[in-house]
Amino acid sequence: MKIAVIGTGMVGRALAGRLLELGHDVVIGTRDPGQTLARTEPDFLGNPPFAVWQETHPAVRLAPFAEAGMHGEIIVNATLGEISLQALEAVGAANLAGKVLLDLAMPLDLSEGLPPKLLYANTDSLGERIQRAFPDAHVVKTLNTVFTQVMIDPARVPGKHNIFVAGDDAEAKETAKGILRDFGWPADVIIDLGGIKAARATEMYAQFYFALVGALGGSFDFNIAVVRA
Amino acid sequence: MKIAVIGTGMVGRALAGRLLELGHDVVIGTRDPGQTLARTEPDFLGNPPFAVWQETHPAVRLAPFAEAGMHGEIIVNATLGEISLQALEAVGAANLAGKVLLDLAMPLDLSEGLPPKLLYANTDSLGERIQRAFPDAHVVKTLNTVFTQVMIDPARVPGKHNIFVAGDDAEAKETAKGILRDFGWPADVIIDLGGIKAARATEMYAQFYFALVGALGGSFDFNIAVVRA
Repeated sequence: MKIAVIGTGMVGRALAGRLLELGHDVVIGTRDPGQTLARTEPDFLGNPPFAVWQETHPAVRLAPFAEAGMHGEIIVNATLGEISLQALEAVGAANLAGKVLLDLAMPLDLSEGLPPKLLYANTDSLGERIQRAFPDAHVVKTLNTVFTQVMIDPARVPGKHNIFVAGDDAEAKETAKGILRDFGWPADVIIDLGGIKAARATEMYAQFYFALVGALGGSFDFNIAVVRA
Repeated sequence: MKIAVIGTGMVGRALAGRLLELGHDVVIGTRDPGQTLARTEPDFLGNPPFAVWQETHPAVRLAPFAEAGMHGEIIVNATLGEISLQALEAVGAANLAGKVLLDLAMPLDLSEGLPPKLLYANTDSLGERIQRAFPDAHVVKTLNTVFTQVMIDPARVPGKHNIFVAGDDAEAKETAKGILRDFGWPADVIIDLGGIKAARATEMYAQFYFALVGALGGSFDFNIAVVRA
């Protein structure tokens, strides 16, 4: 499949790399490819510059947002939550229309450090905002409850543990589940939380998630399993 | 121990019954015992009237909030979140001072049905509000991530699954952990999330929890396990 990953950070790179490995034709979208490639310093999270990463992934093409959007039959939003709407605006509503849009972003407000607050919560969510802004896209909120490395390699966490999808379009959720299965998530651990409104649930989980990170001594390398009576 | 359970609903009854079973001297606090006992109809959640429950638990005494507060060496807030602050005000700041106050309540806004919204979230929590309102109490947020029956009988959910504590007072958290262990929570599944600010984490988890309830076909009989890589 032709897939566009929007965002050149840790999540975007990991997703793009994994999708490439799975045989997809992957383009990463960024505002200004020249500027992205010209960076020589690690980003604010300590990730090496994009150009360094791309040396080991020459098959992943970097393109301006709109060009990436045109390329992708599936679009993956892997931007920081605070700029997701802006970035997707640059990708272009026409390039999102009728397509599956996997929204992995968290609307984190890091202005006061960790644990983060959310930019909005409780009565709204980033997933819903994206769906409202691009009503012709089929937004599926998923993978936003785990750390990057767990997203693309769930087996690094032992045993059964769960991942979630939320979205209004049933077919788009099936496409999303297919990608999750390709990443290594067994079909029976993928829980469908319902419509895109349930993005609130997994986004608000972020405060719990970061509290767990603290309790686990700073490790992000975990997930939760739903255990039934 | 002398324990006051504030609230005569499903959670209050279950907690009081279990604490009695464990050998504690339990008083349930209510606004007006005469009125509580006079009710002959099920409550809005379908629970039988309190008087019916008390027939099978004659050793649990019903008392006005303030009297219950005087009785309790430990206070358990098992009221609905929307009335918790009012109820604890009636218990009395003097009766809470220096005591462990286990806060089990969820600040649910059920005005638009299920899944509930929260009355406040993200930048505040009920746990923090209670701690601010009663600075001399040692508030520990706990048990608010599971259904009543799981709170007092974790073994009904098979295998390892977790429960959380959050509070500013380390000694109070140890007392809380002791009660959790008495309820059947093994020591190694109790996760300390830090100060009372982490009440935000477990309260915001509520939207995720109710989304899971929906995904599991309406069952509340589950919990989550944190699985580490």
